[in-house]
Amino acid sequence: MLVNKNIVDFVATTASNEPVPGGGSIAALSGALAAALAEMVANLTIGKKKYVEVESEMKGIVEALEVKRQELVELIDKDASSFDEVMKAFKLPKETDEEKVTRTNAIQEGTKYAASVPLQTAKIAYSIMEYSKVVVEKGNTNAVTDGAVSAMMARTAVLSALMNVKINLGSIKDEKFVADMTEEVKTLEAAAIKFETEILAVVKL
Amino acid sequence: MLVNKNIVDFVATTASNEPVPGGGSIAALSGALAAALAEMVANLTIGKKKYVEVESEMKGIVEALEVKRQELVELIDKDASSFDEVMKAFKLPKETDEEKVTRTNAIQEGTKYAASVPLQTAKIAYSIMEYSKVVVEKGNTNAVTDGAVSAMMARTAVLSALMNVKINLGSIKDEKFVADMTEEVKTLEAAAIKFETEILAVVKL
Repeated sequence: MLVNKNIVDFVATTASNEPVPGGGSIAALSGALAAALAEMVANLTIGKKKYVEVESEMKGIVEALEVKRQELVELIDKDASSFDEVMKAFKLPKETDEEKVTRTNAIQEGTKYAASVPLQTAKIAYSIMEYSKVVVEKGNTNAVTDGAVSAMMARTAVLSALMNVKINLGSIKDEKFVADMTEEVKTLEAAAIKFETEILAVVKL
Repeated sequence: MLVNKNIVDFVATTASNEPVPGGGSIAALSGALAAALAEMVANLTIGKKKYVEVESEMKGIVEALEVKRQELVELIDKDASSFDEVMKAFKLPKETDEEKVTRTNAIQEGTKYAASVPLQTAKIAYSIMEYSKVVVEKGNTNAVTDGAVSAMMARTAVLSALMNVKINLGSIKDEKFVADMTEEVKTLEAAAIKFETEILAVVKL
């Protein structure tokens, strides 16, 4: 599993000529780090007299983000293995007509899955920005920059994941699937950019 | 060392109520991942007949990025320890006048250092975008999204690191130091935003 590697090795494996981990896994990691930073700000707010009024809200945030962080950590490996599946499909035999059909179908199904994994990453990463905003607005002011970095990492996770959705859509023949996904991609893309700008405007630095 | 932790633990430590790793370390990690992704695209271009014309350029990129990636990986821990230094300075005794002066100086020096570490992160991360651009333009087109993600991770590394510079500048009394740094921050901030837009415009998706 990629996520069992230490930071030095994970980064070095990314840099190598192995195609995974690639942009999709890095998007998921970026999202997990975004969740972690917002969680940290909430944790640094809990138990402080000055912030007693938001104590229960911060506890709720920690609980929600812990789940999202774990989902995003899982998506690091999930993205890599979905890519491997497509590669495997490409290596299927293509001698007989039957083999050709089986192979084409496997490639199409694999690519659809490989598009849906980063879309999931993008959706979860986008949902984190809601929490980045709350911790920036109401969390421990000593950690406000951490909340801002959370928003930026989430934005980049969303946009990076969506780029991996789009590259896969390019080879999918199911027009309805492509049209629906393209719609979702556009909406999420615009929303993430707008939301980041809004959150950063709160941080007076 | 933080970078010896595996991904799961590193992300979980970030999420905890430990103040480090915080936004500064995550900025450095984001920069290291940006370097790694551009390096990967270059590595996936080397040795391919179709790209023989850019082979030596790609080899040069791998060499340059390997150094930058390692510097950014080191900055993950360096950022955390610079924060610890400031915390230590705050805990110095402040009974006598002499102690007060020593403490104030230690806090000021520590904070200057804590501002200079993320500035270094921002500068190196910004310098990676030059390579993200080249691999997006001339590298293996199958990995173009990885080059684009590299550019986005670098942009976010720069902006996140600079936010950590700015928060530290707020408590530094040396006006000349603050003025010079503020100038650098503004220039880098605008440049990173502009450069990301330029690179993403090359990616037709």
